[in-house]
Amino acid sequence: MDDCRECAILCRSLTRDSIVFRNRSSPIQPLVEYEHSTGLVREVFDDIRATRKTNEINNFWKAIANHPPTLKRTWETLKEVMGGPGELDPLVRELIYLAVSVSNGCEYCIASHRAAAVNKGMTDTMFGELMSVVGVANMNNRLANGFQVPVDHKFK
Amino acid sequence: MDDCRECAILCRSLTRDSIVFRNRSSPIQPLVEYEHSTGLVREVFDDIRATRKTNEINNFWKAIANHPPTLKRTWETLKEVMGGPGELDPLVRELIYLAVSVSNGCEYCIASHRAAAVNKGMTDTMFGELMSVVGVANMNNRLANGFQVPVDHKFK
Amino acid sequence: MDDCRECAILCRSLTRDSIVFRNRSSPIQPLVEYEHSTGLVREVFDDIRATRKTNEINNFWKAIANHPPTLKRTWETLKEVMGGPGELDPLVRELIYLAVSVSNGCEYCIASHRAAAVNKGMTDTMFGELMSVVGVANMNNRLANGFQVPVDHKFK
Amino acid sequence: MDDCRECAILCRSLTRDSIVFRNRSSPIQPLVEYEHSTGLVREVFDDIRATRKTNEINNFWKAIANHPPTLKRTWETLKEVMGGPGELDPLVRELIYLAVSVSNGCEYCIASHRAAAVNKGMTDTMFGELMSVVGVANMNNRLANGFQVPVDHKFK
Amino acid sequence: MDDCRECAILCRSLTRDSIVFRNRSSPIQPLVEYEHSTGLVREVFDDIRATRKTNEINNFWKAIANHPPTLKRTWETLKEVMGGPGELDPLVRELIYLAVSVSNGCEYCIASHRAAAVNKGMTDTMFGELMSVVGVANMNNRLANGFQVPVDHKFK
Amino acid sequence: MDDCRECAILCRSLTRDSIVFRNRSSPIQPLVEYEHSTGLVREVFDDIRATRKTNEINNFWKAIANHPPTLKRTWETLKEVMGGPGELDPLVRELIYLAVSVSNGCEYCIASHRAAAVNKGMTDTMFGELMSVVGVANMNNRLANGFQVPVDHKFK
Repeated sequence: MDDCRECAILCRSLTRDSIVFRNRSSPIQPLVEYEHSTGLVREVFDDIRATRKTNEINNFWKAIANHPPTLKRTWETLKEVMGGPGELDPLVRELIYLAVSVSNGCEYCIASHRAAAVNKGMTDTMFGELMSVVGVANMNNRLANGFQVPVDHKFK
Repeated sequence: MDDCRECAILCRSLTRDSIVFRNRSSPIQPLVEYEHSTGLVREVFDDIRATRKTNEINNFWKAIANHPPTLKRTWETLKEVMGGPGELDPLVRELIYLAVSVSNGCEYCIASHRAAAVNKGMTDTMFGELMSVVGVANMNNRLANGFQVPVDHKFK
Repeated sequence: MDDCRECAILCRSLTRDSIVFRNRSSPIQPLVEYEHSTGLVREVFDDIRATRKTNEINNFWKAIANHPPTLKRTWETLKEVMGGPGELDPLVRELIYLAVSVSNGCEYCIASHRAAAVNKGMTDTMFGELMSVVGVANMNNRLANGFQVPVDHKFK
Repeated sequence: MDDCRECAILCRSLTRDSIVFRNRSSPIQPLVEYEHSTGLVREVFDDIRATRKTNEINNFWKAIANHPPTLKRTWETLKEVMGGPGELDPLVRELIYLAVSVSNGCEYCIASHRAAAVNKGMTDTMFGELMSVVGVANMNNRLANGFQVPVDHKFK
Repeated sequence: MDDCRECAILCRSLTRDSIVFRNRSSPIQPLVEYEHSTGLVREVFDDIRATRKTNEINNFWKAIANHPPTLKRTWETLKEVMGGPGELDPLVRELIYLAVSVSNGCEYCIASHRAAAVNKGMTDTMFGELMSVVGVANMNNRLANGFQVPVDHKFK
Repeated sequence: MDDCRECAILCRSLTRDSIVFRNRSSPIQPLVEYEHSTGLVREVFDDIRATRKTNEINNFWKAIANHPPTLKRTWETLKEVMGGPGELDPLVRELIYLAVSVSNGCEYCIASHRAAAVNKGMTDTMFGELMSVVGVANMNNRLANGFQVPVDHKFK
């Protein structure tokens, strides 16, 4: 019973003050669920399902579905760039994508593309090495900026 | 003779106004040339030469040699992270490094690591694909930010 | 009763481990509420209320009120830049502000200026178009960096 | 005659040491000129010429033409996002694009899109106001970060 | 009793939808606790404890301990750069570190280094002044970018 | 004579192709020289001269003088933030400003504030230490992002 009272107090303060992305109305647009999708959005959602061989659609697509032309263009671009034919292995493309997302600090993209990279074979050691390279590149980029290093003639 | 006069005028205005990183004195520190290096700097320079199997030392190292502890630490870190044993292929590490540098817009690092990646086997097509992934990741990072996409439960 | 016990356990783990910005003491400074404000802070708060025609003061102002000169300078700058006379429509200024905040990934600024833009007339379609432009600019900025595109003579 | 000798010395040192993006060989790929373009690249170049009603093709397109799929996808995306139908005025879209490029510090994109914005009607005053907003947004984004401002409940 | 039911509903929705970093399994690696650490990780953890004169180890170290070489290299670098001998006061180094973290928007680093700076003597006023400088630098960096200001000859 | 011809050819190609910010007309606005300044711009320029005790006015101010309200606001803000009374030493403020500019890669700001820091007493060793801290902070910011480190309870 004490548990329950304490809990109720905590819950209310949590709902009042914390960063919870729940039950948004305005100004944030709601996620578009597959079941409520129609027209162009439904077509893209069906292609996502077919391409990825799963009925689940990630929140990213449900969110940008609020602007159908952006959904369509973004999906087609991603599908071609990350999954189309090419010389770079799909796992390598994921590592590059993840490296950029980590560098930019995009929480959503880090979470989703880390999962995608794991799916395509990224081991924990590979992730650690990836982070090392991303860290060092970010450090050395600033050393080059700060010391105002002139580009070597042979690199031009 | 007209050529010559016109040329002289152009040259002088170029030297006066353009962005030329030449003959710097203060406040920018001069590049430390191998021939003038001593002590810790000379040791690191020798290790760079031995590791890279070339007498040439890039401007990056010559610039940060102005602060020897930074030179030493940075070189040892880079040597280990980019060239040490690991699960990621050295070319893949270069691609990741280049991706970060492009994303951050570090001109020096783009020029030098693009050359390094070419040395390790990056083809023009691979470079094009790398740029596509970097571009798309930068675009989608912002779509995720702007639409304030909540992280899917399965990615946590 | 089972509900209650399960709930109590969840609540405790939430409070222990989650990102909740509640009941902060040190090191984060508390929000300065209008009721407790005095002097310079009170003056600025009164001007915010009068200018915005509402008694509500956003957390941004309550937080930076911990350093009154920053509060004063920031408010005066924002008031002039976003609301002063000019050739750019106030809605256009909000769109630009939002574009920068999305590009930088500032969660607070995205949330508050998205709301501000909606208040000034941004429709869902406009938001989608804004996000498209922000996304493409971020992508193309990196393509220009990576391909090291020389600036066309006519743009200088 | 003295002029001429001095000039010759200056010129040689300029060509040797300065940042000049001319006569690149490897590792930077050459710009693809319209005259030498074929196949997919030629098709895109023709569409750029027709859409923009000018024979001139900017260096950006000539550079990314080294990877034809990137050229095609990037052009189609840009054409649709910046020039397609929509609720945002084409000038407003340019202002947003420019704001992002300035915020990211992409020199090429700033130069080319500033010119584009001028073409679509941006006055010097509008540019000044745009810069003010971009500057203030970048400042306030960091104040929000640093003071760790919790998002107001009403913005969720 | 009503309290309890309402609370249970809230709790469940919180666990389902909110950003809670709890009970992660894959794809995010668990924090490595001191008690479970062995070998290289244990050695570094012991050095952290000895250096900082506390048994507590921050989550940052527990997280990167998933890749022991990164843990070791990062700790040694940080220890030397932030705590080693030098001309810059340790508090000044913390202010610089914090300035960069705020500029990049790294939530974890802002929280932990703000605490570290407070420990080393940063007052609330100093923090406010630091934020002012960080804000103004971010603003003016963009004004310099946007107005494409040529570097003064005397600064080269 | 051969010298002269070769030189003329070089000069012309340099002027045609290189990145030279000289003799700009449209679309880049010209620098506003003191001699041609009037009204508000002249007032601010006079205050800059008086405050800095030199007749020289940096290009930054000459460039943003194209939008007088931005000139005035930016100067007053900078003067107060960098030079006003406070707990942080003016040199420390310059170091923080420089750290942010290096992190953002703003070439102009790095050059001008490096000179300003030297003026206020920054030694070469201090600069090297500053760069180390900036580098490490940029590295560790990304490690924290990538490993998705949860904020320790004690930092909230």
